[in-house]
Amino acid sequence: MIRSPEQLRSRFANRRPTLEYGDALETVRGILRAVEQEGDAALDRISTELDGYPVLEIPKRQWREAYEALDAELRDGLETAKERIEAFYRREPWGGFLEAGPEGVLGQLVRPLDRVGVYVPGGSAPLLSTVLMTVVPAQVAGVGETVVASPPQVHPGILAAAWVAGADRLFAMGGAQAVAALAYGTERVPRVDKIMGPGNRYVVLAKREVYGSVGMEGLPGPTETLIIADASADPRLLAADLLAQAEHGPDSEAWLLSPHRELLERVSEELEHQLSSLPRAEVARKALSRSGLVLVEDLEEALELANLYAPEHLCLSVHDPLELVGWVRNAGGIFLGEHSCEALGDYLAGPSHVMPTSATARFGGGLALRDFLKVIPVVGLTQKAAARLSRLGARMAREEGLEAHARALDRRTNLD
Amino acid sequence: MIRSPEQLRSRFANRRPTLEYGDALETVRGILRAVEQEGDAALDRISTELDGYPVLEIPKRQWREAYEALDAELRDGLETAKERIEAFYRREPWGGFLEAGPEGVLGQLVRPLDRVGVYVPGGSAPLLSTVLMTVVPAQVAGVGETVVASPPQVHPGILAAAWVAGADRLFAMGGAQAVAALAYGTERVPRVDKIMGPGNRYVVLAKREVYGSVGMEGLPGPTETLIIADASADPRLLAADLLAQAEHGPDSEAWLLSPHRELLERVSEELEHQLSSLPRAEVARKALSRSGLVLVEDLEEALELANLYAPEHLCLSVHDPLELVGWVRNAGGIFLGEHSCEALGDYLAGPSHVMPTSATARFGGGLALRDFLKVIPVVGLTQKAAARLSRLGARMAREEGLEAHARALDRRTNLD
Repeated sequence: MIRSPEQLRSRFANRRPTLEYGDALETVRGILRAVEQEGDAALDRISTELDGYPVLEIPKRQWREAYEALDAELRDGLETAKERIEAFYRREPWGGFLEAGPEGVLGQLVRPLDRVGVYVPGGSAPLLSTVLMTVVPAQVAGVGETVVASPPQVHPGILAAAWVAGADRLFAMGGAQAVAALAYGTERVPRVDKIMGPGNRYVVLAKREVYGSVGMEGLPGPTETLIIADASADPRLLAADLLAQAEHGPDSEAWLLSPHRELLERVSEELEHQLSSLPRAEVARKALSRSGLVLVEDLEEALELANLYAPEHLCLSVHDPLELVGWVRNAGGIFLGEHSCEALGDYLAGPSHVMPTSATARFGGGLALRDFLKVIPVVGLTQKAAARLSRLGARMAREEGLEAHARALDRRTNLD
Repeated sequence: MIRSPEQLRSRFANRRPTLEYGDALETVRGILRAVEQEGDAALDRISTELDGYPVLEIPKRQWREAYEALDAELRDGLETAKERIEAFYRREPWGGFLEAGPEGVLGQLVRPLDRVGVYVPGGSAPLLSTVLMTVVPAQVAGVGETVVASPPQVHPGILAAAWVAGADRLFAMGGAQAVAALAYGTERVPRVDKIMGPGNRYVVLAKREVYGSVGMEGLPGPTETLIIADASADPRLLAADLLAQAEHGPDSEAWLLSPHRELLERVSEELEHQLSSLPRAEVARKALSRSGLVLVEDLEEALELANLYAPEHLCLSVHDPLELVGWVRNAGGIFLGEHSCEALGDYLAGPSHVMPTSATARFGGGLALRDFLKVIPVVGLTQKAAARLSRLGARMAREEGLEAHARALDRRTNLD
């Protein structure tokens, strides 16, 4: 089915994350409270109950063994990904400033976070790539310690990725209890300053609950891709890319916007063809029924809809993608041309695959070095400059009804 | 009373925001839901009920009139503050990169947010300075539109500050209903991409609830200052600065750490003396009873405790403050020497006074240009580079159980 833009505009414009409450939230709150109050005892009890194992820290020796047991091609993939991510983030400009002048010193110090936690889902899709996509940028930023959490039994590929990425510690723990342990700390698990990485509904609800007590780069929702294509695009590649997006889960969204009806029709046929042999075809079909193909007037309308939708991944499968980039205001990441498919970004392109979902690209960006750095303003005025400004400040403080502020400033105004 | 560090270390190390639930949260959720579902009708109804007025947009003409009615000294204060904030943020280094090489194009685009909302408390302390401290950095970052919300009747100083700062729109609305209107949008109030600024318990609970649907620079809690002083410090200034902090509210904290017992004793006497004539003395006394004076072994121990505490404001009232700066890991902002008091930072020093509270300085920083900018990674690989990487990517995708990803990559591997 090919949709028209009219029915989508208001849906796109009002898109936001939906985190339903109810039973799951009560469960999550109970888990958070137990771990906060009882520490490791609660952590082991809940983990045994839900995942079948108490929480274990896995020593680095086992990471290395897991790495050495991989086939050469997978080892090459992990190593190459690490090198490329590292090289990409080394290019990110950052830094503070500290300027001394006649008035004194003013500036911003930039400091890496002390300790970061990374949640890596296990289960049906053990995201070993996520280890690299979070730990490597943290290392480049100079973070003191990175702690990985993944549900037991931890997939060997995740251990191997932790080895390659250079993580510091790894705990076999999952779910809301892992988020609680990272946010509050227990006797064994150190409290972290920020939690990164995706997770299931319980993990995301837990992250939402501890927001404020611990830093967060965002609340990951179902993943999504929006492709804009012109007549130059190959319908087989477009269909393959839509399916790569759609296989993630039934609530994923995969959109293709094009002004060329014939292209959309050929993609539609191609989707059926490729679906017929796909293992997760049912999941992909459900995701596609939530999204799909849209016939737009022209590329301008496609971009307008894309900016409203604010996709996690925006793919520009057009003849001259760089020409369109200047019009993009809201996107988690941009993929130029049909060779740079989103799946390549998931593993090896360079930038982290952690990107904002559910229209949070309106205010959040792809994971960047700056997500691991904090900015600390510094004020060091001379006595003379402070005296001059304090007179004006005292007047403003009194307007705000803050007399002690005004008096503290008065004392700087009267130079002995 | 002079405290010893032993009793404080574990309290400092486990500090985090406390947002109690109960009735207030239920009230806030009801307000959010009503405004989300009914828009302006609910907004006006709730605002009339709680604040006595329906929501009004105040036109710029009235901002200018409020500005012109101010006395010359206050006008000078606002203008000077604006110039200094603008000059400070113009120095902040930022920018993306876009590098073209034999493999294609890789980079990060940096884009300002489309629309930002600023909440400015009214009531007993109408924080006109907060308008400048949020709107001016937004302007420097290139934000498309800034929308100010402040409870009715809006204090004329806030209107005047909006005029000086160059805000775009101003709505007389407060509380959780204002947060809801900014987060979801109504017929009259435009939805914003990020909400900045402090607020009371209802405002902060509302911000916490809408986190995820809208960007947030943090959840502002009670304000706090930690001063480290050596024998060179003036006890009268130290007492005045502790009181300027303590007058904010009974749950503010004002700490002074020094290895010099005699200094602490003189500050203690001076506090009593200055409190005797302070209008908000009762509030300040309560705040001081939650915090106060600490005798440390040496400056090293003071810095260790400061890093554990992660104060919103860290004041280094010592002979050579720059020497200590290198040891600071966690602070919202640093004030060097006794002339650069925190009250000056509240109004005129240059950096925004929006700084992280309740130990969130562990992961958050003072308001920076980057809080108004998003980073969008760009991937544009050549067909040849994509083909080479796709082979490795397909292997990784299969390890993760994502067959459609692997097939999308296989199609890039086989160059025709």
